[in-house]
Formats: sequence, C-alpha cells, structure tokens
Amino acid sequence: MFCAALTPFNADLSPDHALFAAHCKRLLDDGCTGIAMLGTTGEANSLSSRERMDLLEAVLKSGVAPSQLLPGTGVASFMETVELTKHALAQGVQTVVMLPPFYYKGVSDDGIVAAYSEIIERIDDPRLRVVLYHIPQMSSVPLSLDVIARLREKFPQTVVGIKDSSGDFANMSAIVERFPGFSVLVGADPLMLSLLPKGGAGCITATSNLVASDLATVFAGYADEARQPQVAAAQERIVAARNTVSRFAQMASLKTLLAKRYGHDSWTRQRPPLTPLTAEEAATVNASFDAS
Amino acid sequence: MFCAALTPFNADLSPDHALFAAHCKRLLDDGCTGIAMLGTTGEANSLSSRERMDLLEAVLKSGVAPSQLLPGTGVASFMETVELTKHALAQGVQTVVMLPPFYYKGVSDDGIVAAYSEIIERIDDPRLRVVLYHIPQMSSVPLSLDVIARLREKFPQTVVGIKDSSGDFANMSAIVERFPGFSVLVGADPLMLSLLPKGGAGCITATSNLVASDLATVFAGYADEARQPQVAAAQERIVAARNTVSRFAQMASLKTLLAKRYGHDSWTRQRPPLTPLTAEEAATVNASFDAS
Repeated sequence: MFCAALTPFNADLSPDHALFAAHCKRLLDDGCTGIAMLGTTGEANSLSSRERMDLLEAVLKSGVAPSQLLPGTGVASFMETVELTKHALAQGVQTVVMLPPFYYKGVSDDGIVAAYSEIIERIDDPRLRVVLYHIPQMSSVPLSLDVIARLREKFPQTVVGIKDSSGDFANMSAIVERFPGFSVLVGADPLMLSLLPKGGAGCITATSNLVASDLATVFAGYADEARQPQVAAAQERIVAARNTVSRFAQMASLKTLLAKRYGHDSWTRQRPPLTPLTAEEAATVNASFDAS
Repeated sequence: MFCAALTPFNADLSPDHALFAAHCKRLLDDGCTGIAMLGTTGEANSLSSRERMDLLEAVLKSGVAPSQLLPGTGVASFMETVELTKHALAQGVQTVVMLPPFYYKGVSDDGIVAAYSEIIERIDDPRLRVVLYHIPQMSSVPLSLDVIARLREKFPQTVVGIKDSSGDFANMSAIVERFPGFSVLVGADPLMLSLLPKGGAGCITATSNLVASDLATVFAGYADEARQPQVAAAQERIVAARNTVSRFAQMASLKTLLAKRYGHDSWTRQRPPLTPLTAEEAATVNASFDAS
C-alpha cells in the first residue's frame, strides 16, 4: 500500500525538501508500505531532472530507506528516463514507476514496447524492478494488455507490476486475471478493497496523503473476518475523503487539507500549469473534510 | 516560411549532427526563411535537454546563422523550458517555438497563462521572442484565443506569434483576424496558400523537408499575378507530396523519402515510441513520390 505523495513547494516554487521528508515519515508511520514519490500527484513532470534527483536524495538523507521508495522516473525522453532510473538505482532504490514516453500520441504497441525495451536495455541492471504506469487520462498513451504481455515475456525479472490509474475496474481485473504473479496496484483509493480479493497487490493512491492509516487498515484487514467492522469504517472514511477532494481539483484539494494539517503554506502551492484552489473552494473543502 | 526539420539518427540513436546540418543548409538553399528545428517533427521530445542543446550548437557551428533558427524549447517541466530557452539565447538565437507544459491535461487557461508567464519572467531577457505552439492532437493542451490575448497583453514585445498545427483553418483565421501584427504560422503545408492572403505570416511545416522550394515559390509569389502559374504548379506538388506522406505515418514517410534523396540510413531511423515504416510501406511511399 503506497502513497502517491504530494510535493510541497517553497515560495519560489522549489520543492520543500524538509516538509516533504517529514510527510513521507508520517505516511510510513501511518502504515504505508512505501512512498511512490515523483508521480503525477507529486507534480514530477513539472520538475526538472535535477530537482527530481535532489528530492530523492533529500528523502533518503532524512532516513527513509531506499526500499521504501518507488520514485517515478518515466519522462517524455527515454534518454532522461534512463538517467533518472540509473540515478535511483545508484541511490539504492530498486523499484521505479515508469510512464511510457508521453509526448507522441497514437503510437503503436510496437513503439511502446520498443521504448520500454530501449530504456531497460540501456540501464542493463539486474537489480532494476519496473512498475509500468497506465494513466491514459493524463499520459494519453494507454498500456494495453498486449504491451504488458510482451514486456513480461521479454523482461520477466524486471517488469514486475503496473500502476493502473485508469479508474477502469474491468481493466485492472483483466490484468490481474491474465498475469498471475504480476503486481497490479490500483490508482483509485476506493477500488483497492475490491481488487485485493481478486489478487490485486495493493494501491498507489493520492487520497492516502490524507487517510493513509485508513488505507493501511483496509490493506491489512480486508481478508480477516474479525476485522471487517474496522475495515468497513476505514473504507467509509476513504470514500468520504475521496468525495471531498473530488469536488474541485483533486491535487489542489489534497494540498489544501495537508496545509491545514501541517500548518504550512508550502503545502498549498502548485507548479503551473496546475493552480491552487480559490479561497472559497478551499473553505468548502476544509469544511467538508471536517464534517466527514 | 520555415521547415519543421526532421532529425536523422545514428545507429545508436544519437542525433546525426553532420547530416542534420547539411539538411538545414539544403533547406535554406531551397528558399526556407529559417529552420524550426527541435519540434514535434524533429522528435525533440524524445531527446534529452543535453542532446537538444548539442544539436543546436552543432548547427550553429556548421555556419547556419542564429537568426535562421527557431528551435523548440517547450518541455513538460517549465524549469527545463527556461534552461533550454536561456541556452538558445546564449547562442544568439532570439526566437523559439514554445509548447505549453504538456503532461497535465484539462488544465485551465489561468494555468497555461501562469506557466508561460513563469517561464518568460524567469528568463527575463528583452531579446526573447516566443512563438506559441498550438498542436492539441499531440500536446493535448490547446491554446485558446483567450490565452493568446492574455499573453499578448502581458508580454507584447515577447509573445510575437503562434504555430497553429491544429489543421483547423477556422481557428487560424480567427487568430489572424483578432490579433493584427501577431504572426500566425500554419502547420499544414497545403493551408499556407489560403492563410497568406488573410494576413497569415507563413508556415512551419513538415512536408517542406521534402518540397521546400515549392513552399518558397508559394510564399514568395502568392500575391503576384504574373507568378500564378508557378504558384499553382508548386501548390499542386505540395498537395501531392503531402498526400503521399499521409498514407502511413507522416514523419516516418518523410524520413523514408529523405533517406533516398540523401542516400543515408540515418534518415530512416526514429526514436521510440515512433517506429520506421515497414519495407513494404517504404516501397509504396517511394513509388508514390516518384510517380507524383
């Protein structure tokens, strides 16, 4: 159960390393297996390669173990995906979440397989573990079941899982059924409870920035008859939180709530082209969360 | 009249600097006003920042003047857009073609204006001239008329034009009509002839890699009664070439034809996720071009 961690920014929009590291530790204390930092939710694609590497190093330096981090390393240029992934490996991190190259649209399955192959072969490191990243509403480059099959066959030790952020439960279920032993991590918090009994591996989600302990309760207890009341109550809070942060822009809403929790403005900032909530929206979100 | 130059690659997929520089010179000899290198057609978003800067420097070193180059510098992270643009300015290049940040989708006009503003203000160089880049089918981040209006008002000396690659003639016409003095460069070769009389500034196109002299004929002669026969004949060849390269993937088709023209394999290669034509497709494209 991984949190797609949000990234706080200083007034000059540089990543706030100290606040971010403290947030990661809180998430781990709350029961997260690890932190999927530098993903869509973390605004990684609004950061430079240097900023991404610096943030990863800062978190490690703060005492978080490399095995607890699943950084996103997939960018538009496969050359830079290679650089970012090699950097993560050099820091002791073995598992990365990797977007396909996302600038060109309408690319073929052959092209997507070629891109991942080029990256994995150029990195050429037996330690590497890749979680593919399917988020078609943002990347506009969907990963088909055929792409997964071909990459699994070509790199069975390396391509170990997928983050499915499509929100399409039928797609996640199909992947779980077709690829036993392949880790399917759901990207939408409320769906984890339904995917786990089918063989899902867990989640990488945004709302867990706020309700990590509830997600941890569901993850640990979903199959335990005796813990069903706690699991049900936690799931209810997860759904309520998700509804609250889905009224307006989700990331901005989560940041608004974290700014309140931590009492720090760095949490409200977003890098353009994303924008923070208006004061009115923020008040609505805060009231809604407090009431739930 | 600018060519959106294709990029040849060596066997290891590194950009072939010498072939690229030679191609740029041929395009200028054929009558191009300048070279819009490192755009969508140039596979720039499959290159690292370092590779982009090296290619720009190589072309300049080969003797092409900075004033003849319009490099693309817009990437997903505004931090790197700033770096690439500052590098171009440091090389003497003043005009760049700038994509909006293209990872996040469904962003607001406020967010797009904020992103361009952040970039222009961080660069803070009075020499800078920005051509906005509207290519919604690839970036998935359209630039509305309202975004153009706001950026023109905020940065009247800097935001001087737009490349409209939407293929939507009504949109280009609307921009020309609403913003006198703003340079609208059409992204589809056959449309330039229709946009010029309305006040269009010219084009940045892909097919001109192949038929630059014909585009130059149209550009120079469209308003001259005496040159209408030559203009019409050139336009016919442009349309035929465009039809030929639109049967299969356009960039791969153009590269196939350039590989034949220049007799060099580097021209056939594409970086993943794009893929070259199959042998059969290539034969069809070559035959079709020879016949036209």
